[in-house]
Amino acid sequence: MTTLSVFMDVPLAQKLEGSLLKTYKQDSCPNKIFLAFRVCQTSKGHPWVSSVVPKMRLQIAQDPSLNYEYLPVNGMKSFTEAALKLLFGKHNQVIVENRYQLEGGCVPTEPYGLVFQDMGFTVREYSFWDSKQLCMDANVLLNVAEQAPHGCIFVIGNICDCNLTQSQWATLMASLKSKQIFLFFDISNQGLSTGDLEKDTGFLQYFVSQGFEFFCSQSLSKTFGIYDEGVGILVVVALNNELLLCVLSQLMKLTQALWLNPPTTGARIITSILCNPALQEEWKQSLKGLVENIMLIKEKVKEKLRLLGTPGSWDHITDQNGSHSYLGLNVQQVEYLVKKKHIYLPKNSRINFTCINAHNIDYITQSINEAVLSTKGLD
Amino acid sequence: MTTLSVFMDVPLAQKLEGSLLKTYKQDSCPNKIFLAFRVCQTSKGHPWVSSVVPKMRLQIAQDPSLNYEYLPVNGMKSFTEAALKLLFGKHNQVIVENRYQLEGGCVPTEPYGLVFQDMGFTVREYSFWDSKQLCMDANVLLNVAEQAPHGCIFVIGNICDCNLTQSQWATLMASLKSKQIFLFFDISNQGLSTGDLEKDTGFLQYFVSQGFEFFCSQSLSKTFGIYDEGVGILVVVALNNELLLCVLSQLMKLTQALWLNPPTTGARIITSILCNPALQEEWKQSLKGLVENIMLIKEKVKEKLRLLGTPGSWDHITDQNGSHSYLGLNVQQVEYLVKKKHIYLPKNSRINFTCINAHNIDYITQSINEAVLSTKGLD
Repeated sequence: MTTLSVFMDVPLAQKLEGSLLKTYKQDSCPNKIFLAFRVCQTSKGHPWVSSVVPKMRLQIAQDPSLNYEYLPVNGMKSFTEAALKLLFGKHNQVIVENRYQLEGGCVPTEPYGLVFQDMGFTVREYSFWDSKQLCMDANVLLNVAEQAPHGCIFVIGNICDCNLTQSQWATLMASLKSKQIFLFFDISNQGLSTGDLEKDTGFLQYFVSQGFEFFCSQSLSKTFGIYDEGVGILVVVALNNELLLCVLSQLMKLTQALWLNPPTTGARIITSILCNPALQEEWKQSLKGLVENIMLIKEKVKEKLRLLGTPGSWDHITDQNGSHSYLGLNVQQVEYLVKKKHIYLPKNSRINFTCINAHNIDYITQSINEAVLSTKGLD
Repeated sequence: MTTLSVFMDVPLAQKLEGSLLKTYKQDSCPNKIFLAFRVCQTSKGHPWVSSVVPKMRLQIAQDPSLNYEYLPVNGMKSFTEAALKLLFGKHNQVIVENRYQLEGGCVPTEPYGLVFQDMGFTVREYSFWDSKQLCMDANVLLNVAEQAPHGCIFVIGNICDCNLTQSQWATLMASLKSKQIFLFFDISNQGLSTGDLEKDTGFLQYFVSQGFEFFCSQSLSKTFGIYDEGVGILVVVALNNELLLCVLSQLMKLTQALWLNPPTTGARIITSILCNPALQEEWKQSLKGLVENIMLIKEKVKEKLRLLGTPGSWDHITDQNGSHSYLGLNVQQVEYLVKKKHIYLPKNSRINFTCINAHNIDYITQSINEAVLSTKGLD
């Protein structure tokens, strides 16, 4: 029987991600190091987990009163409410005026480019990092807003890393309003940037007070250390509650067709922690410890490079917030590290500093020193 | 400030599901009964859970060696393999020839109509139930296949309930091939239909042996009692492995944009059970107990209707397989039960027999008797 396959014309899709990780995995060198993991690592090189999470996981498994029934399409109510309070603070205008809606579920936070592209949008990516001045440049954002087409969508990650001045904020707000730009904030590391949960998302309240409508996806996977489930919510802020009921009805329809019922395990663990003051405090302390450790690693890297006499100032390492920061290397230096030293990092030299630990810091800093010396005067 | 909302033109989406459940919930009558739950209920009216699941859940939570890292986009390999063996049997042709690909994730199994409609397909629904003859009618399927447009897709749930004869199978296969109809099987209750896991999905092997390519979504949520996560796989069967690599690459791309990483809890529980012969046996026994209970409930309902002298033969109740079967009532009789007796069931009278238990069986059968008597001679 000579049957033709219905799949005959299906082309092989290009791999869009993970080629760096793939090359790293195929490298047989015992000293190889990967500096681009998405999530925070412990000093032993395992994904970080808040100490309070395994305790709560066990407690939940032992609780005979819990059921494992289908959740409603819009998620676990207690979870979405607790997550919202974390994002906005208890007494925020949107909560008081019932101007938000929530949608819990498996919200992916990283491949936004892919999602929008698949929906037919033209996607342009911008980075606030100025690789010449070795600092964040708020003007990138201001220029993009000024030149953006009318009615486009801005997907914004860590806007607080830009350190906008009062007058820059005013300019930005004016551009966004006159261009009717719709905002989509992506908060996947609240508390990991400055170590202060409220400070990290304070800008959201500013947008609310200025009368903006927006979407905000909040993921709690990284800040609790629950990576095997996308634990998060989508917050919709609109001018009034009537508008929201319509938006919610559309979201519910989409959700029914996409995943029907969100998973509960992660949501249940996080809700139990956030709704118990003592456990919430323990979680906050664990998060603070993680941030302090990130700062310490950065200080050590800077100090070691200073002791090695590596040319240039390395203050930009400690000036940046969060686990992921730019090393400030050029493409030749990155290539030197990957090819000659088996240290894998992306071309823009933005690395996960928690991948650096007591075992590999000397090798990494010495290699950076070599890379900088070897390419001196080349660019 | 008079700002116009960006959501101004968002229409309120129509609710597509759950209106029967909503009416039931709003009913204040203490005797109200809902007979249309999607999942099997225990005699106490809780969702059924296999006895082996809570044990395994606890054991997993207590295991310090487990990590909760991101799963690969195509799911937990040990889970997808165990689920596939369950579906096809260990030594099946597709497994031996590496002609399948797997995709684990939060695969919704019920609102297929919605999913296909959202993608622009014209969806037509058919039921094999013949409400006049009170039996499954395989000719419905044969007629649909004969009249279907060339190259369309058939989404097929419980084909084994049709009891096709050898010659009906041959006719069906011929129509499907000549029309180049693509098959999408939906298996969400393997083992619940006949009580025999292999028997319930035996037809898949027949399609493989006849050289068909198809998709098959398998959900294990109902047969293990893990309802808070969509635990399942999508199996792609193609003519050869080269074709599959292309299909898989496209699926991976879609998955990355849709949910990125599938949840692990349910997959981990089920894998641990299926990979341990003793636990697998315990699970099979619990499933068998559930099926026997369904048969017992149906027998009791039939016997009570006989004792009440309810007009008509009620053999069709015990002739049907599975938890969900047609009572064989007409629209007037269903309306009588809903409006007069607060017993909620869909218009086609297909109910979940596990919603009937020792506490409500007398009320339900007496009400059915009343409904039948009250509408006698009306149609």
